[in-house]
Formats: sequence, structure tokens, C-alpha cells
Amino acid sequence: MNEHLMAIAQDISTMKIRGAGRIAVAAADALRITALESSATTYDSFVGEIKTASKYLVGMRPTAVSLPNAVRYVLWRGINEDMTSIEPTRLAVIAAAEEFISNAKDALRLIGDFGAKRLLSGDKILTVCNSNAAIEIIKHAHRDGKDLEVFAMETRPRYQGRITAKVLAEEGIKVNLIIDSAARYFMRDMDHFITGTDAITANGAVVNKIGTAMAALAAHEARVRVMVAAETYKFHPETIIGELVEIEERPYDEVVSDDAREDLGPVSIRNPVFDITPSEYIDVIVTERGIIPPQASFFLLTELFGWRLTGRDPWE
Amino acid sequence: MNEHLMAIAQDISTMKIRGAGRIAVAAADALRITALESSATTYDSFVGEIKTASKYLVGMRPTAVSLPNAVRYVLWRGINEDMTSIEPTRLAVIAAAEEFISNAKDALRLIGDFGAKRLLSGDKILTVCNSNAAIEIIKHAHRDGKDLEVFAMETRPRYQGRITAKVLAEEGIKVNLIIDSAARYFMRDMDHFITGTDAITANGAVVNKIGTAMAALAAHEARVRVMVAAETYKFHPETIIGELVEIEERPYDEVVSDDAREDLGPVSIRNPVFDITPSEYIDVIVTERGIIPPQASFFLLTELFGWRLTGRDPWE
Amino acid sequence: MNEHLMAIAQDISTMKIRGAGRIAVAAADALRITALESSATTYDSFVGEIKTASKYLVGMRPTAVSLPNAVRYVLWRGINEDMTSIEPTRLAVIAAAEEFISNAKDALRLIGDFGAKRLLSGDKILTVCNSNAAIEIIKHAHRDGKDLEVFAMETRPRYQGRITAKVLAEEGIKVNLIIDSAARYFMRDMDHFITGTDAITANGAVVNKIGTAMAALAAHEARVRVMVAAETYKFHPETIIGELVEIEERPYDEVVSDDAREDLGPVSIRNPVFDITPSEYIDVIVTERGIIPPQASFFLLTELFGWRLTGRDPWE
Amino acid sequence: MNEHLMAIAQDISTMKIRGAGRIAVAAADALRITALESSATTYDSFVGEIKTASKYLVGMRPTAVSLPNAVRYVLWRGINEDMTSIEPTRLAVIAAAEEFISNAKDALRLIGDFGAKRLLSGDKILTVCNSNAAIEIIKHAHRDGKDLEVFAMETRPRYQGRITAKVLAEEGIKVNLIIDSAARYFMRDMDHFITGTDAITANGAVVNKIGTAMAALAAHEARVRVMVAAETYKFHPETIIGELVEIEERPYDEVVSDDAREDLGPVSIRNPVFDITPSEYIDVIVTERGIIPPQASFFLLTELFGWRLTGRDPWE
Amino acid sequence: MNEHLMAIAQDISTMKIRGAGRIAVAAADALRITALESSATTYDSFVGEIKTASKYLVGMRPTAVSLPNAVRYVLWRGINEDMTSIEPTRLAVIAAAEEFISNAKDALRLIGDFGAKRLLSGDKILTVCNSNAAIEIIKHAHRDGKDLEVFAMETRPRYQGRITAKVLAEEGIKVNLIIDSAARYFMRDMDHFITGTDAITANGAVVNKIGTAMAALAAHEARVRVMVAAETYKFHPETIIGELVEIEERPYDEVVSDDAREDLGPVSIRNPVFDITPSEYIDVIVTERGIIPPQASFFLLTELFGWRLTGRDPWE
Amino acid sequence: MNEHLMAIAQDISTMKIRGAGRIAVAAADALRITALESSATTYDSFVGEIKTASKYLVGMRPTAVSLPNAVRYVLWRGINEDMTSIEPTRLAVIAAAEEFISNAKDALRLIGDFGAKRLLSGDKILTVCNSNAAIEIIKHAHRDGKDLEVFAMETRPRYQGRITAKVLAEEGIKVNLIIDSAARYFMRDMDHFITGTDAITANGAVVNKIGTAMAALAAHEARVRVMVAAETYKFHPETIIGELVEIEERPYDEVVSDDAREDLGPVSIRNPVFDITPSEYIDVIVTERGIIPPQASFFLLTELFGWRLTGRDPWE
Repeated sequence: MNEHLMAIAQDISTMKIRGAGRIAVAAADALRITALESSATTYDSFVGEIKTASKYLVGMRPTAVSLPNAVRYVLWRGINEDMTSIEPTRLAVIAAAEEFISNAKDALRLIGDFGAKRLLSGDKILTVCNSNAAIEIIKHAHRDGKDLEVFAMETRPRYQGRITAKVLAEEGIKVNLIIDSAARYFMRDMDHFITGTDAITANGAVVNKIGTAMAALAAHEARVRVMVAAETYKFHPETIIGELVEIEERPYDEVVSDDAREDLGPVSIRNPVFDITPSEYIDVIVTERGIIPPQASFFLLTELFGWRLTGRDPWE
Repeated sequence: MNEHLMAIAQDISTMKIRGAGRIAVAAADALRITALESSATTYDSFVGEIKTASKYLVGMRPTAVSLPNAVRYVLWRGINEDMTSIEPTRLAVIAAAEEFISNAKDALRLIGDFGAKRLLSGDKILTVCNSNAAIEIIKHAHRDGKDLEVFAMETRPRYQGRITAKVLAEEGIKVNLIIDSAARYFMRDMDHFITGTDAITANGAVVNKIGTAMAALAAHEARVRVMVAAETYKFHPETIIGELVEIEERPYDEVVSDDAREDLGPVSIRNPVFDITPSEYIDVIVTERGIIPPQASFFLLTELFGWRLTGRDPWE
Repeated sequence: MNEHLMAIAQDISTMKIRGAGRIAVAAADALRITALESSATTYDSFVGEIKTASKYLVGMRPTAVSLPNAVRYVLWRGINEDMTSIEPTRLAVIAAAEEFISNAKDALRLIGDFGAKRLLSGDKILTVCNSNAAIEIIKHAHRDGKDLEVFAMETRPRYQGRITAKVLAEEGIKVNLIIDSAARYFMRDMDHFITGTDAITANGAVVNKIGTAMAALAAHEARVRVMVAAETYKFHPETIIGELVEIEERPYDEVVSDDAREDLGPVSIRNPVFDITPSEYIDVIVTERGIIPPQASFFLLTELFGWRLTGRDPWE
Repeated sequence: MNEHLMAIAQDISTMKIRGAGRIAVAAADALRITALESSATTYDSFVGEIKTASKYLVGMRPTAVSLPNAVRYVLWRGINEDMTSIEPTRLAVIAAAEEFISNAKDALRLIGDFGAKRLLSGDKILTVCNSNAAIEIIKHAHRDGKDLEVFAMETRPRYQGRITAKVLAEEGIKVNLIIDSAARYFMRDMDHFITGTDAITANGAVVNKIGTAMAALAAHEARVRVMVAAETYKFHPETIIGELVEIEERPYDEVVSDDAREDLGPVSIRNPVFDITPSEYIDVIVTERGIIPPQASFFLLTELFGWRLTGRDPWE
Repeated sequence: MNEHLMAIAQDISTMKIRGAGRIAVAAADALRITALESSATTYDSFVGEIKTASKYLVGMRPTAVSLPNAVRYVLWRGINEDMTSIEPTRLAVIAAAEEFISNAKDALRLIGDFGAKRLLSGDKILTVCNSNAAIEIIKHAHRDGKDLEVFAMETRPRYQGRITAKVLAEEGIKVNLIIDSAARYFMRDMDHFITGTDAITANGAVVNKIGTAMAALAAHEARVRVMVAAETYKFHPETIIGELVEIEERPYDEVVSDDAREDLGPVSIRNPVFDITPSEYIDVIVTERGIIPPQASFFLLTELFGWRLTGRDPWE
Repeated sequence: MNEHLMAIAQDISTMKIRGAGRIAVAAADALRITALESSATTYDSFVGEIKTASKYLVGMRPTAVSLPNAVRYVLWRGINEDMTSIEPTRLAVIAAAEEFISNAKDALRLIGDFGAKRLLSGDKILTVCNSNAAIEIIKHAHRDGKDLEVFAMETRPRYQGRITAKVLAEEGIKVNLIIDSAARYFMRDMDHFITGTDAITANGAVVNKIGTAMAALAAHEARVRVMVAAETYKFHPETIIGELVEIEERPYDEVVSDDAREDLGPVSIRNPVFDITPSEYIDVIVTERGIIPPQASFFLLTELFGWRLTGRDPWE
């Protein structure tokens, strides 16, 4: 296999490359290099090499969502039944990879642009955890001269909400930090609940940091709009064939110190990382391809990753 | 004024006597002693002395709920228009005070008894904060041989849920500690959400530790029963004449350390202590006088504290 | 003990006397006779005899609701601390028993009268099971010249709805019989869902034949009013101290024939008799004492049966 | 019959005396005068005279709610089985009438006082129609120095909302006038929907000007609190025995001009005056006796008008 | 630029051509003529001319929805990367324009046809404002022999509902005119709420005359189906990139006369023209391309106007 | 016409071939044979023959959903405007028919595979009626070693739920049989409600055996996930152009025996076969092409059956 590809795969595997966006871009780039440097001389051997490379890459982080999405994007556009000669295919693979990379790099800016248009001066906004895409929307609107006030949930157990609070305050935005369970208390004064996401399922459910679903429920109760910011590589095609998004439970020491742990004796610490917000509590999902209702996730998955209702991965 | 009364009032004022129950019992006892030791020789002077003592006591902690309730209970029963001679009145005041004290002391046991009957073996129970009455219900059911599993919300910012977890685990009950925002995640497996309360309003809303309302909302969403454990001196008669239960905001240092506070720069920390759960999310309130629907709060206030729709405090 | 009382108790125990109303009337009558024929010569021995008789009667059918209610009604009014001489007490017991009997006998007529006023010509009404009180309301309105159409749920497993259908049709009312699971299908055309009840809890929940809660839920979904017809002896005071209304499961042969049972092999047949409709799905409860919101159950229990928030049965 | 009484009855009948409050006060005064001037010499003839007078008064406006309430209040307190001599009864009737009149006169002030406590500076308030009691609450809070902004629904077809708007603006309150169907549009910014009422039923439903129920529904959808301002003589005891509050339809000319009517040809104009807001959309009812949850209506009816679950009017 | 095009553009700008449908058809026709009469001799100059014309047209009414939709439709189909010679492109532009015009002209008939199938004889229908498409559905069903009854909301402030009422009554349909705030009062008897729309957003929300959202909410509360009639040129592609549909506020004199205005003194008149009905309250949207769920708006926008998730307008 | 085709059509007409899947496969096969054996010599005559055959087949069972879907699938793929010569078209028709048949045969297995992934060990599952697809999901998960417990609604009037119960119990799965109206009683303990379907409309509503909608409503009330298992030929394209799915009413003798019928005298028996579950109560639809949200039905209809928003059947 191509050396550059193997190096990138290695970096993904060892988490030297991390973050959904960076992994996806790296994978697309690995395929681009593989296509560029391939010494294959026939169409079949070239396609075989690309598919082997794809399978290898995907195997590095089997539970990541963005990684196989990047690969699907490239193969869906780069390899298809109409072409049977090697050079146009090579070019198509390279072009698809470059397009994916370019889109991914623009994604944050576009999401910020699209989402910001939905905010008005005077709006109060609830946030949870620390999402670049959600932050970008708020910053973008602030730079457009809109006067906003943010209420950032601290996001136990790891307090990522403090980072969000700090980052936005440094931009000159009025920010309040609150404990997570105060979300409903402040909800009636909010105009938006804006959140990022880790993954979006085929039926439009949003998998995100624990607490998101409760805040969305409270928003729904008070007729507050819920806006999810998500690069398209966050959509989760495997959910189309029934894969459940597994909710990992993390170690106790995120929740209590070792001393507290000891003091609690036989008490178990349950620490699930994510929860699932059903589509009925979500107003819009803001992607770099436009703003969609959550129920359009299935359609977007077929458009972007060529799912075409077959359920077969393109590297198989 | 009576010295014992003044000493008790002092202890209430300096928070040497604290906790809704202890304050209430102390106030009733102060009136009992005042009546017992009064040197008044006419009905009018006796009643005047009791009323002065009452007003003095209530003034020690103007925002407490249980304190004026204890006083109202004693005066409503001890002094009434049918009696005009001093000795029967003295006896009635003493009897009413003793009755209040006896009831208050029995309250925890009776609430435990009544509430426990509603739990079945195999039930899973969510709790918030650290309420003696709620704990008593769970312990009582456990002692009756019922096999229960508890999920205790940690209750930011001050983690009182850890105490609840520890206390119940020491009884041999299976307990899990979770972060507050995981309440909805675990809700679908719960059979009950059991909570104490700081105050209950005339229209059946429950004022309790921040986070209670969100958990109750999530319980309602999943058809999980919400049981509030409340001694009757927690009911808040002033709400009948429109008094809002004020939601205090506490200092930032409950939420972040000084270092974190500094690091957050211009970010505000908002730290409300309580929230309000509307009656529609509450199934029953378990009191030592029986189990009532939240909407019966108004009726119970009139029964216990003689409100009789007049709005006048008996010491006026 | 009094022979007549023992005979009545025997008939209640052997279910020769059955039906909530008949049991209640018989119990009140037994106390009346006991009081009338008592040979006690002191107040204390008379009261002791009445209490012993009461306890004995209640023990005949420990799970019935109307039986202890009848006894509570008589004792609450017949025996109280103000009287200490035997003859007035005897008269009071007899008067209370006669009052209870008279009220019970009038109950059906009054419920029919009150409930019928809420029906308009042209109304369509859904019913479940076979309740005399619910039927009386419909008949009463029909006799008042109102043009009604009834949709009777057949009420599996024992098809009591067929009796309702037949009885109403014989009155000349337009009646349709439907399977239970068609209730939602027809709901949008309904104006009322009218049901009887087996018991009503302190917080206003209605315990009735399985299927009632589903129909009430579907009514609530479609803004159709739910009217519960209930003699006051159906209200369940023990729920005030936490007693759960136990939902009995009956034998398989109500659901399947023996042949079908055999054919089903290892399949279990679960056959709960009742379900519980929460107060939020109920518009009004029509009693012979007037029409109340479900949340007033607690108040009515204290008014009728003297609960006065003490939790002690008057025969103890 | 007493001449003064007949004159008052006449004025009620001819609508010279109009408005729920004024009618009620006049009726109580008529009974006071009748008692004062009665030449009856026996208890029986006196009671007979009062009952005859009562029945006569009530017959003047059979559909009014406040009229029979005033009479019930006086008879319930003035005549009871414990008294059998004429003079104390006469005094009791007079005292009860005076008490009713005094309460009615204080009602507006007390409702304003109680309700105003629930408003905070900065609150935005939606109103419908033109209710003195609702206006009093807002004015009272304004006078207490609270900064409020009101959105007054114009209240088609007769635009009573314009009067409300004008009256409040003259007090110096910031007021906006909106069309009725814009209520949901502005709802998310509201903190309260405050309304008066024409009648309140035994199960806590509020009968008020058409449009109230839609605004309350929209308030409920957005978690905005609904506060109903109601003097206690607005509660409707007959609903306890099933009487429906009839919704009158008024003539077409309130809705369209004669020209428009003619232009519309065969189109019917339907013009119902009231609608019914179910208790589940109401947070509190503010009365001069205190703030109650809607479900306490039944209890309040029994407390004030002596209904005691019998269903019999005291003049029968 | 082409003279005919400039004349049409002028007429659009001066509102000589008005109404969403007429504007759209005129714009497509202008492009058709431009293509037909173009003297361009190269592919590039031809495409440049068409794009310039497109931009010019769209600039005439920047906030209209149907105008850019017509242009997008023509360009998406007429100009694409596969063709590079002028004549086939000219023909394709002309064909696309003719197709758009033909579809637009058929739209009303097809919407009437599709929507009418969903109505049954005996149905009662609520309407708001005056929408040709909604009216066509009702008329079509009426002509099919179905017996319908319509309740037309008058639609303050400008009473367009009277026109709807008159038009339908002239067809021989039974029509009632009601004030807007009576919508909930009559809702329980309705089978459908049928409305037109001004614009539909990417996430399926319906922008229509103020009052629509309240009626839809009341329909949802009562399980009444909501049917939106919308030509496809009403769908709003810019909402995909975050554009909010701005809700214009119109002058006071639509709401009150000048005299009334003066009388109201400092009262502000707020007069928003539209409101937004969320997709969860809408059952179906009836378009000339078929009946879709509101969430399919995004898909339909991509199908019809070639959005393909790029966000770039084809004239750029 | 082709003899084989006519024989198959005959068997469909006489219901010798029955069941949605078998009818669809037979129709596709009939078109395959027709294409294979066609003696047409020109493209036009061949296409004419295929269209005639299609129309003939569809006419055999005008209300079936799967029959026209099979035909649409074949024609959409087999005949299109790009081809104009006979032999490639013949091959394309044959290939499309074979693909449809192959997909249909795989459908059950794939639905089982996809749906089973969403079940976890320990899950409790409610079912209604007897659907092969729903059963396959449960069996598949059981075979994967997951420990499940099923509650099968008996499904009056014809008790198909007993078959489901028996079939699953024979696999070794723990099964309980319950009456239909007990669905809500057991719902709180359920993790899934899994149902098959007879048809799915363009807006994602599920038409299935009466009782499905009530169970789905109760599931929604308790936050229990609803999973619909549906082969894609169950989706109903005609609903796009407004066709209502007609709900047939079947004869009385499914509900009562002849004896019971006679005994009921003038009572009508209403026996609708299906009801309609709105999309808001459905979590996912599991098809052999993947798992979709109900709102994606419209998209899937266009993808599979080539609806392309034209509304014209391909045989016309």
C-alpha cells in the first residue's frame, strides 16, 4: 500500500490526527495521494487499490462517523460504472477528494454564515458543551453587529461549557455561565438553543453530549427554537441499516475525585457521554450545504454519500 | 417577653436552630412555654402576649415557611372567638403547640410509611438533592423487603446528591450516582421520581433545588410518576395572597473555583438555588396528613393553618 | 354480636350480596339494626359494640371500597366526641345510617340528572364496560328528548359492552357496538366519553375496567370531554395513606378458550382487570353530591368520610 | 313583599342595575333591608319571608351568576338550623348581607393587591377584552413602580380591548394594541396572560369573552403563565349540578355592517360571545379571598356559598 | 437588454404585474423571449445574456419568492455543463420556460384535484384569509358532489375572509363567517383546516396571513387535519441558506380608523402581516406536483430548483 | 396478450395469488415473461405491448398497493426516453423485473437484519396483529442471542395476535398474550412497539390493522419507540395525488356470533379493518432499503417508483 496513506492511517489510529473534521480531511487526502501515486496500469487494478486503501483507512477508527463518510464521498463520485478506463477514474478520484477537502474546510465558515442569519439583535441563546460550529454561528452574528447574550451550560462532568463561555466572552459577547440543571430555569427568556452534534442518524435524531436532550426538551416545552450546527460528515449512514449509535460510558473519575469515590463506598457511578435528542425537538440542522429539517437527514445521506438505498459500502 | 421565648427566637435568628422542621418545632415550643409561664391575668392581656410573642418569633426569619406555619397552627387552634376566659385559652394554646410538635416529630415516619406503600419491589427511583422525607420513603420501602434501585442526581453545584447516594447505599440499597443532565437519559427505566421540597404554593407548584423541575419535566415526558415528599409545614400560605416564592441567587464560588472564576474573565456566573415545578408534572404530594394531589394544597392550607380565605395573619 | 348483622356480614362474605352499592347499603343497614337492637346500657359499651360490629363488617371484604366507606360515613356522623350519653348516640347512628342508605338509593337518579344536563341533542357518546351510573346519564338525557348516538366498546375479555349496547338500544337510543381498539378510530366524531368507575383515588385517578385509560387518552388527544359517573362510595380513602389500588389479574380462560390455551403452548396469558386513568385526562366526575373536578376527590373524601387528615379509621 | 326589595328587583330586571358586582351588592342589600324592615313575629314567618324574597330576587335575572351567589351567601350564613328564634336570625341575615357587600366592595382592591405581587418589573403582559379586575392588577403593579408593557388584544367584534388599551395608557403604562389573531405571534415575548372572567365552573373552567381560550392555549404552548382575575361571586355553583354555561350567540351586526351583510348574501354570520378555557391552561385564579388553583373552584364554592354537596338552593 | 424583457421587468417592478403566480409566469416568459430573440452568436455570450437578464429580473422584487423560483427553474434546466453549443441551449431555455409556464397555469387545477380527493361528503372546513388554491380545493370537492360546510375566519385587519365566504357561497356551498378568535370555539366540529400560504421554508414551516398559526395550533389541539395549498413556486429556497422570512408590519390604519387612532393617544398599534406555522402542526402540503409532508420541502426545493446543496444562485 | 401474463392476472384476480409480496412478485414476473416472449418487432409496438400488459395487470386488483408498485418499478427502469430501440429495452424490462423480484425476496431478511440491530438484550416488545416483517425482526434479534420478551396484542376481531404469539413462542422467545385494550397498561414496561403495515402514505402515515394507532399513541405518551416494518412495495404512491386510503368496514360476524347479533337487536355493529397512525407517533420505518424516518416516505416513493413529481402512471 501507498506509504503516505499508511502514515496517515497510522496517525488516525494513534489519535495523532483527531477531531471529526481533521480525520475526514486526512482520509480524503490519503485517497487523493493514493490515486495520484498509484502505479496501477489497468482500471481494475487501480480500482482494487483504491478500495483496499479505503477499507484499510476505515478500519483505523471503526466507530468514527466522519472517516467512512469521507471515503464514501470520494468513492461515490470517483468510481462508477460508467467509466472503465484508468486515467479518467484517477482524475475523478482526485477531484472528488479535493472537493471533499475544500468543502470540509469551508464548512465552518458556511455554517456560521447560514446560522447567523437566523439570529436577531437582542436574542438570548442557550448553549451546551463546546462546539466549533455552534460557536461560529454566534460569533458570525456578533461580527454582523447583532447584540446577543449567551447562557452557556457548564456541561458536567468535564465543564467544556466553560471553554465556550470564555471563547465567546473574549469576542466581546455578553456571556453567562450556568449549571446544567438550570437550563429550564432560564429557558423562558431564551430565543434559541444552539448546539453542535457528534452524529446525526438517518431519522434525524441528534447524538450529542449528555444534557443536550434535556435542554432540547425544555426548549420544546417553552416554544424556544432548537438549532443544531453540523458539518455534513457528521451524518451517520450506518444508521440506515439499523446500527445504533452506541452511548459510551466513561470512567467514574470524570464525575468524582478518587477521595469522593472512596467515600461513596458501594455507590456505582454511571457516566454516559452522549444522549439522543429526537427530531421532534429540533427545528433546523445547519450544515455547510444548507439548512435542513432533521427529517431530511436520510435524503442528505443519499445525496452526499451515494447511499441510493442499497446499503452496500462502496469499498466492498 | 418571656425569656425562654427570646432565647429560642435568638437561636432561630442566628441559625443555631436551623432546618425547616427544627425551626417549626422550636417556634411551637416557644409559644407553649410562653402560654405556660404567662403571668397575664385577663383573657385580653394573655392573648395580647401570645400575639406579641408570635409576631416576634415570625420576625426572626421572615422568609422561612415553616416558622409562621407553626405559629399559625397554634394560634388558629389555641385562640378563637368562642372562648373568652384565660385558663381554657392557655390550655388550648398549650395543647395546640404540643399537637403541632407531636405531628412534626411523627411527620417523617408517617411520610415514609405512606409513600413506601406506593413503591413495589423491582422499582427504579430517581432522586435529586438530599431530602430527609424522600430518603425516608425509600428506606421504609427497603425495610419492608422491597428490592429497589436508586439513581441519585449529584445535584450541582453543591453535590448534595452524593449524600443521598451514600446514605441509601449504607442501608444496603443499590444506588447509582449520575450527573444532573443525565436524568433524561436514565428516565425511561425509572418507575418513580421522588423529591423533597422547600416550599409548596397555594396552586400546588413545588419550589425545590434547581434541577427538580427539569427532572420532573423529563419524568412527565416518559409517563414516570413524580412523588413529592413534604411535611405540611412546607406549604406556603402567603402564596395565597400573591407572594411569589423568591428564587435566591447564590455566590459564584459554589459553581466555580476562584481560579476558574478569574480565568473566565468577563463571564457572569448565574447561580439560582431553586426552581419551580408546576403542578401538572406532579402526581402526588406525600404529607404526614396523607397523600394529596398538588391542587389540594390550597385546601390543606385552609384546613391546617385556618386560612379560611381571609388573608389575615392571626397575630395581627 | 347482633344476629342480623352477622347474617348480613355472611351474605357479603359469600357474595350473596354483591355490587358496590348493595354492599354499602347492606353494611349501613347492619349498623342501623345493631344500634337499634343493642342492649348496651352505657355509652362506652354501646360505642364499643358499634365499633366491633364495624370492624367485623369491614373484614368481610377487605378490598371492597364501598363497604368501609359506608361504615365510615355512619361512624363519622353517629359517634363523636361531643356526645357522651348513649341514647342520643344511638339515634345519631341510626340517623346517619338511614341518611347513607337514602343517599345511596338516590345516587343513581341524581347522577343521571346532573350528568344528563351536560349532554346536548346531537351528541355522540363513547362508552366502555357496563356501568349503571353511566347508562343512567345517557338514558336520562334521552328521556329529556335529546337525540343521542352511542358507540359502545365491547369491553374484552368479557364483553360487558354488549350489555350496555343492548340496554341503551332497548330505550330507543341509536347504538353502535365496536371493538375496543377502534375507540381512537371513532373518537374524532365523539362529543363525550362517559364511563363508570370501580374506585377513585385521593389524587383523582380513576380505577376502572381495563381499556378505560386508553380510551381516555384517545379522548384527550382529540379534545373530547371525559365524564366519569361515580357514586361517592366509590371514592377510596385508603389511597390517602398510600394504599395502592391493586390491579387484580384474572384467569386465562376469560381471554382464550381451553383449546386455544393449549394451542398457544408456552405463551403466557396476562389478564389485568383494571387500569388507572390519570386525573389530567378527566374533565369531570359526576357524583350524587354534584359534579367535581377529579382533583377535588381528596376534599370530597374528607367531607364525606370525615378523614380530616388523620388517617385513622373510626373503628380503631 | 318589601317595597325596597321590589324596587331593587325591578331595577335588576330592567338592567338599570347592571354589572355582575353591582347586581350582587344590590341583591344582598335588598335582603338586608327585607330583614331589617320585616314585620314578621315568628321565626318561621321571618324565614319564610326571607326565602320568598330570595326566590323573587333570583328570578329577576335567572342566568346571572352573581345574583344567586349573593343570595346564597346571605342565607347560608344568616339562616341555619341551630337558630330557632327570630331576632338573632334577623341580625345574622343583616350581618351576612353587610359582610357580603363589604367584601364585594373590597374585592377589586384585594385582587389588584394579590395579583400585582406576581408581576415583576420588566414583565410583558397580554390582555383580552376589558376586565376591571385584570386592569386593577396591572395598574396596582404599575403604581408599585414596576415597569410593565401591555399587549391588548382588540377583542373583536366589539373592540373592548381598545378601552383596556386606553385606560392603561392613561396610567402611563406602555401599551400596544394588536389584532386578536396576533396573540400567538407576540406570545413568546410575554411573561403573563391576564384575563378577567364572566363565570368559573365547578371544575375550574373559565367562561370569558370569545378569544380567551385561544390566547390561553397559545400561552400554554409557550409556557406563559395564565392569571385569571375573578371576584368570588363569579363562581358558578349550578355547574355543580351539571348546568352548562350556555354560550349565547349575538346578532350579526356586531360582526359586519348591514351593507357588508347584504353583500355576503347567503353566508351565515355565527357570533358566539364566550368560550371556555379548560383548567389545564390556567395557572392561578386571583380572587379577593386569595389566589387559588382552578381546581379549587369546587372547594371555594362550598366554602362561600354553603353548597355542602347537597345541591339544594337555600331558598327552596 | 431585450426590450420585451425590460418591459416585463418594469411591470413587475411597478406592481402592474402582481400576485405570486402572475409574476412567476411573466418572469419565465421574459426569459423565453430573451432566448428566442437573442442575437448572441456564441454559447458564452448567449449564456451571459440569459444570466444578466435573470439577475435583472430578480432585482425588480427582491423579496418576492416566486420570481427567483421561476428564474431558477428555467436556468437549472436550460443551462448546464453538458451542453456547450448555443442552439441546443437556446432551445432548452425556451423549453424550460414553457414547461414552467404550463405547470404554473395547471397548478391551481391540479391542487384542486389532489386536495379535493381528501375531502368527504359531510366534512366541515375552517378557512383563513383568501387563497385561490385553498378555495379551488373546496370548490372542486363541491363540484364532485360532496356536501361541505365552510367556516371562514374573517381575517382581521383587512377582512379577506369575507371574500372567501362570498365566493364559496356563490358556488352554492354552505358558508359561515366567524371572527378570527372564534376559531377554537368551532374547531371541535371541524374536519379540516385548509389554508393557502405566502411562502414555505426549507424546514417545512408555513408563512401565511397572521392568524394561520393560531388556527393551526387549535386544529392540532383537537386532532383536526391541517391542509396547506401551495403552488411549488411558493417554496422559499433562500431559507436553505438561513434567510429568515421577514414578517413585515403594516401601518396602523389597517387596524383602527384615524379617529380611533387619535382617541387611543399614546397606545402603539402593532400590525404584523404574517405568522409562521411550524411543520408539526401541518398534516400535508398540496402542490401541483403532489401531496407532500411539510418536511419534504427541502427535497422538493432541490428537485424543482436544482438547489443540489450548493447554495449558489444559477445567475451568479 | 401473452398467455402466461393472462394466467397470472387471473390468479391475482381470483385471489389464488394473495398477500402483498406474492402479488407484487407475480406481477413483475408477468411483465418479465411478456417482455421475453414478445413478438413485437418495433420499439413502439413493444412498448405498447408492455403498457397494455401493465394496465391489464393493475386492473385485476385496483385497490392493492403492491401490484401497481411492482409495475411502476419495472416500467420506470425498463422504459425510458433515452432508449428507442427494441432489444435494449426488452433487456432493460427483464432486468428491472428480475431486480424487483430479487429485492422482494430479500426484503424480509434485510428488514429482519436492519431492525434487529435496534433491539438490545433485555428489551420488552409490544406487537399487534401478525406481520411477517415485524416477526422477522424479533426472530432475528433472538437468533443473535438477545434475550427478549414479547407482549402480543390479541388483535380483535380476528385474533391474529395469537398466531404471532405462537410463532414467536415456538422460537423459544418469552411471549405474553394480552387483550388489545391492555396495551397502555403494559406500555410503561415496554422498550419498543413493533408493527407491520398494510400501506404507508406519502406523508408518512401508517395504515395498519385497527388498534395500531391506539397502541402507537400510548407508546408516544410513554416515550416508547415505535418501529414499523415495511417492504418498500407497501408505500402508496397514489396518496401523492390525494387518494385517501379507504378504510373498509367488514361484516358483523367477525365481531359477534349470529346468536349474539340477534340478541343485540337494533344495535349496529361497526367493524373498520384499519386505522391510520400519524407520522408523529412513529420513530422509524424499517425497509429492505434501509431505515427511514416516516417523513422520508415521499422521497422513497420518488426514488423507487420514479414518481418524479409528475403524477402520471407510466402505463398511461
